[in-house]
Formats: sequence, structure tokens, C-alpha cells
Amino acid sequence: MARLTIPLHIRWSDIDGYQHVNNAKMFTLLEEARIAAFWASVPGDARLDAVGGGVDPVHHPADDRAPGTKILATGPGSGTNTYIARQEIEYLAPLPYTLRPVEVQLWISHLGGASIDVCYEIPGPDGDPAVRAMTTLVLIDEETEKPRRMTPAERASWEPYLDEPVPFRRRGR
Amino acid sequence: MARLTIPLHIRWSDIDGYQHVNNAKMFTLLEEARIAAFWASVPGDARLDAVGGGVDPVHHPADDRAPGTKILATGPGSGTNTYIARQEIEYLAPLPYTLRPVEVQLWISHLGGASIDVCYEIPGPDGDPAVRAMTTLVLIDEETEKPRRMTPAERASWEPYLDEPVPFRRRGR
Amino acid sequence: MARLTIPLHIRWSDIDGYQHVNNAKMFTLLEEARIAAFWASVPGDARLDAVGGGVDPVHHPADDRAPGTKILATGPGSGTNTYIARQEIEYLAPLPYTLRPVEVQLWISHLGGASIDVCYEIPGPDGDPAVRAMTTLVLIDEETEKPRRMTPAERASWEPYLDEPVPFRRRGR
Amino acid sequence: MARLTIPLHIRWSDIDGYQHVNNAKMFTLLEEARIAAFWASVPGDARLDAVGGGVDPVHHPADDRAPGTKILATGPGSGTNTYIARQEIEYLAPLPYTLRPVEVQLWISHLGGASIDVCYEIPGPDGDPAVRAMTTLVLIDEETEKPRRMTPAERASWEPYLDEPVPFRRRGR
Repeated sequence: MARLTIPLHIRWSDIDGYQHVNNAKMFTLLEEARIAAFWASVPGDARLDAVGGGVDPVHHPADDRAPGTKILATGPGSGTNTYIARQEIEYLAPLPYTLRPVEVQLWISHLGGASIDVCYEIPGPDGDPAVRAMTTLVLIDEETEKPRRMTPAERASWEPYLDEPVPFRRRGR
Repeated sequence: MARLTIPLHIRWSDIDGYQHVNNAKMFTLLEEARIAAFWASVPGDARLDAVGGGVDPVHHPADDRAPGTKILATGPGSGTNTYIARQEIEYLAPLPYTLRPVEVQLWISHLGGASIDVCYEIPGPDGDPAVRAMTTLVLIDEETEKPRRMTPAERASWEPYLDEPVPFRRRGR
Repeated sequence: MARLTIPLHIRWSDIDGYQHVNNAKMFTLLEEARIAAFWASVPGDARLDAVGGGVDPVHHPADDRAPGTKILATGPGSGTNTYIARQEIEYLAPLPYTLRPVEVQLWISHLGGASIDVCYEIPGPDGDPAVRAMTTLVLIDEETEKPRRMTPAERASWEPYLDEPVPFRRRGR
Repeated sequence: MARLTIPLHIRWSDIDGYQHVNNAKMFTLLEEARIAAFWASVPGDARLDAVGGGVDPVHHPADDRAPGTKILATGPGSGTNTYIARQEIEYLAPLPYTLRPVEVQLWISHLGGASIDVCYEIPGPDGDPAVRAMTTLVLIDEETEKPRRMTPAERASWEPYLDEPVPFRRRGR
């Protein structure tokens, strides 16, 4: 079972008056984990890409969090936007503030024609999962604003991280 | 079918580089709709509550968004915190920036012993639903940090808003 | 002395682990006060503007916070962006969470050729000023990305709110 | 001239509809730079501190951004809170989104009895300063909620970073 582990710093402003990571900010952490996992470059980094000799799936010089799955050129002006179709999250324990980076574990439970189901687990301070979540991303052609098919290179780089969906406990109702 | 309609201003900082409401900020909007619907007072408003003669479920002077469901004294120091156990969201269309308040529709699909399933729909600029979502809230005793049972008064004020769960289209996988 | 008073709801996620409005979020509140005071329409509201018969400086139907100063068509696609050149803030007291809207007072201390100095005061729960701040805005032509001159209509709508700059206590060093 | 350099990832949600770092989020970046520079531990990290053998000003195991100035035990429950008395910022150029960390430069322009003036510069993509800012922090005794005097150890760790205040261009009016 191959999971990406993305270390992320909680920000002080992610904490709300309950002194835990705010529930909406948790999705910001998941968003940042996805970006670290998938986004290879953004148009604003073009100058840097020139220096670095283009997008390198093994190590991208623009981003110190770069894993091998990072081959999606995205963001405004790139040709592809990644939109979110759905999200689901389950909180098993509150996530307190810490100066240590939290380690978001990320894997893929489904590669569709134009969509990706990304699963996450964030361990709490005791090491047990505090958060489980799932996001369905859709690759959107920036010009037509329609979904566009995943390329073979994208599929090949993401397939090693395919695994079972994250198990939600309370999803029944 | 009784729904609460909570008008909320999108903030300029809710918009991200895709020029739509950011996916995590959408949960902030849902959070604000819940607070407007449910929270009767917070300890910091004590002075005001004294002036207003206590919590009035029909119209609470502290909050100009106040509906009749607003009987939950909450927040740090109040005795009860409301924690989120799970959330689910489906985006049918992006929500663009607007100066008009968006009208979050909110109802309840389940009243458990200590939990509430809140459903939401946010219409987009064309009036069709742009967002559908569901949150499971748990009433937490602030001292013991355990769930506490819903009171009859709480149940009675929320029952008129019981309805079918929001229909998610893509929840299958 | 004419001041605009803009009521704004603090969001639960504006509060940080110190259980006050976070210092960066205070600038979000100021931003929202400015937008309520100045922005007449955004391109995304075009459909609505057509219904409402165009921008009306006295009462704009798109925005329930609309004051008479609201004549700046802005936002991406509008022709004019408003950029911030500088900001200054002084905290006299922390701002606790409240369900009541806070009332941001706003006036103008300088109208330059292409810039506006906006001053603010936010009263705390005891009515005394908790926050004083000042922002220098620059009107930017969206196409050329250069400052553009204030129009006579803009100047005329904002002149009634000209007053002394907000007095900062500790600015000396 | 000794400056601390704190690398920070811009978040996608820091970008607003103008496709630059939002003006309020800039203060969040400054806040994170301060925390990385100064905060040695938070009560929630107590377990970790036990493992790490206490706070080590040279390298603190809790935080991978840890510089030698990091000797302030802070946060709710620690005995000391750091409140902001004033802030000032000047934007020389917008800061676009990038996957690379931005490098916040941070130094101290004044050590008072209970206060610290922190100065910052953030370079833009071309290497020239895009942002200059200054924050006055006050050390607050958590129990009494009054300012408390800086300790000799705090002063000694911060003195090497004393330098001239950041030069603001437009502060005149």
C-alpha cells in the first residue's frame, strides 16, 4: 500500500475559538496536500521552470514538497484547472495546534476518465487517525470549461498510489 | 417543507485564483449559516443578553440574522460546544463572487440523541442549486468533553425543520 | 464629521486560539467594510445590474449594505482594480467573538489623484475604539496595470466623508 | 546585518480574485514567519517536548523551521501570550501564486521592556522587495493579562537580530 506523506504546517489562524483546527480549515490542509502531491507548475512559475528545464516528475525544483506524482501543470493560464466535484470528511478526534508539521497521508481510490478520487488520513497527536476524508477532483479544460481526459502519463504516475477507499464509519444515513 | 433561509455575504477573500468561492471557504459559509440558525448567545455577549432579557427563541436581539431555531447557548464558556463529526458536500456549479448575499437554505434531516444532521443547499446565480451539503453536529458537554443529550426545548424548536436528506448525486462509490 | 457605519458579522473562523479576532482577519473585516462602502458592482453581477437598471449611487439593489459612496465598478473584468499600497493598524483592545454585527466606522482622510486614504475605527464591546486603521488604496487600470485618475463623480461621492486622519498613538518610532 | 530567513508556502486560498496574495493573508504569512522565528513550544506539544528533552534554542525538534531565536514558550496555557499592538505594511508589488516557498526576511528594530518591533521584507518573483512590514508585539502575562518584562535570556537570543527599522516610502501623511 503506497501512500504519499505530505508534511504541512498548521497555521495559528487555522485554530478557532474551540482551540482546534477549524473544520473548514481542515479542507484547506487537504487542498494544500493535494497541491503538493499533484501540481507540477503554475504559470507564475514559468521563469523558474525555464531554469529547471521543464517539469520533472521525480523532482521538481520549484517545490520542496515535490513527490513523483507531481506532473499536473495547472492553475489559471495553464490549460487545466482542477475542480472539486465532491468532498467528504469524518472527524475522529479534534486536531490541536502544534508547531510540528502534521503528516497528511494521501492516496488514490479511483482513477476515472477525467476524475480522481483522492483519499486522506491525518493522524492526531497520539498517532491514531484524527481525520479521514475523500475528494473527487475533475480535470477541467480551461478553455472549454468541460472535463478533459486524463493523459496516459498522468495515469501512469498516479497508478502506484491506487488503494482501497478510506473507510468512513458513520456514512450510513 | 420548512427551510431556513440564511442570507450571507461572500467575502472577497473567499474567492481563490480560480475566481470562484474556494472549496474550503464553502464550509465556512455553511458554518456561518449554522451559527446564524442555531447559536442563541455566546459568553462574550452576556452583557447584551442582560439588556435583552435573556435568550428569546423567537427573536434574539444580539443577532440580526436570528431565526426561531436559535436556542443553543454555545461557544467556549457556555457549557456546550458543537463539534462536527462529519461533512459531505457536492458542487454542481462554481459559485462566483457577488455583492449580493447568497441565500443558504438549511434544514434538518435527523435529530439523534446528541447529534443533528443539518442539510444545506446554496443556489447559484441562475437560481439552480450550486452546492448541496450535509453536516453531522454533536452536542458536547464542555466540562466532560462527552456528548450530551439534546433537551426537549432544543428538539421542539428544531423539529419543524425536519425533512428528507439532501439528495447527493455522486455518492455511490 | 460624516462617517459611514458598516455592520459586519464576525465569523467564527475569524477567532484564533487566543479567542479574539485574529490580527490578520481584522484586515479582512476592513476589506469587507471598504467593499460595502465603495464597490457598486462586479462583472459577475451584470445580470442583476441589468434587472436593477444600472448602478444607482443612492441605493444599489445588489448589496443590502449599500451606502451612497458605492459608485466604483470594480473586480476582475470591470476595468478598474483597487490595489492596496499601504496599511496601518493599531489595536487598543482585543475584539472578542460576538453574534452581534460589529460596526466598522469608515471615513476618508485624503483623496489623491489616483489614491484614497481610508480610515477606520472599530468599537469594542464597551463602545470604546478597539481598533484604529488606515489603508491607502490605488485605482488601477485593469488593462495597463497603471494607476488611473479618480473621476469627478467618484470624487464628488467621496468628498462628504473627508475628515482628519485617524489618530495613531504609538506611531512614533 | 543579521536577518532570519523563513521559507513559507503560499496557500492556494491565500490568492484572491485579483490572483495575487490577498492583502489580509499577507499578515497571515507574517504571523507564520514570527511563529517560526520565536515560538519554542506550545502546551499541546508538551508530549513532544518531553521526548525532545525540553526547549533547545539552537534546534528545536518540534518545528522544522526552527531558528536559534525560538525560545518563547507561548500559546494558550503557556503563561505568555504575544499580542499585537500595531502593524504597518507597504506593498511595492503584488505577490503572485507560486509553488516555491517565499522567503520572508525578518529582523528586530527595537527591544522594549515588554515589546518587540519586528521588521519584515518579502521578495517578489524578481528578487526585489514586494512587501515591507513592521509589527509591534507585546508579551502578555496570561494570568494577569498585563504586559510582562522580557527576560534576559529572551533579550540575549534576539539581540543579534537588532537592526535599522524597515524603510517605509509613503508613510508621510
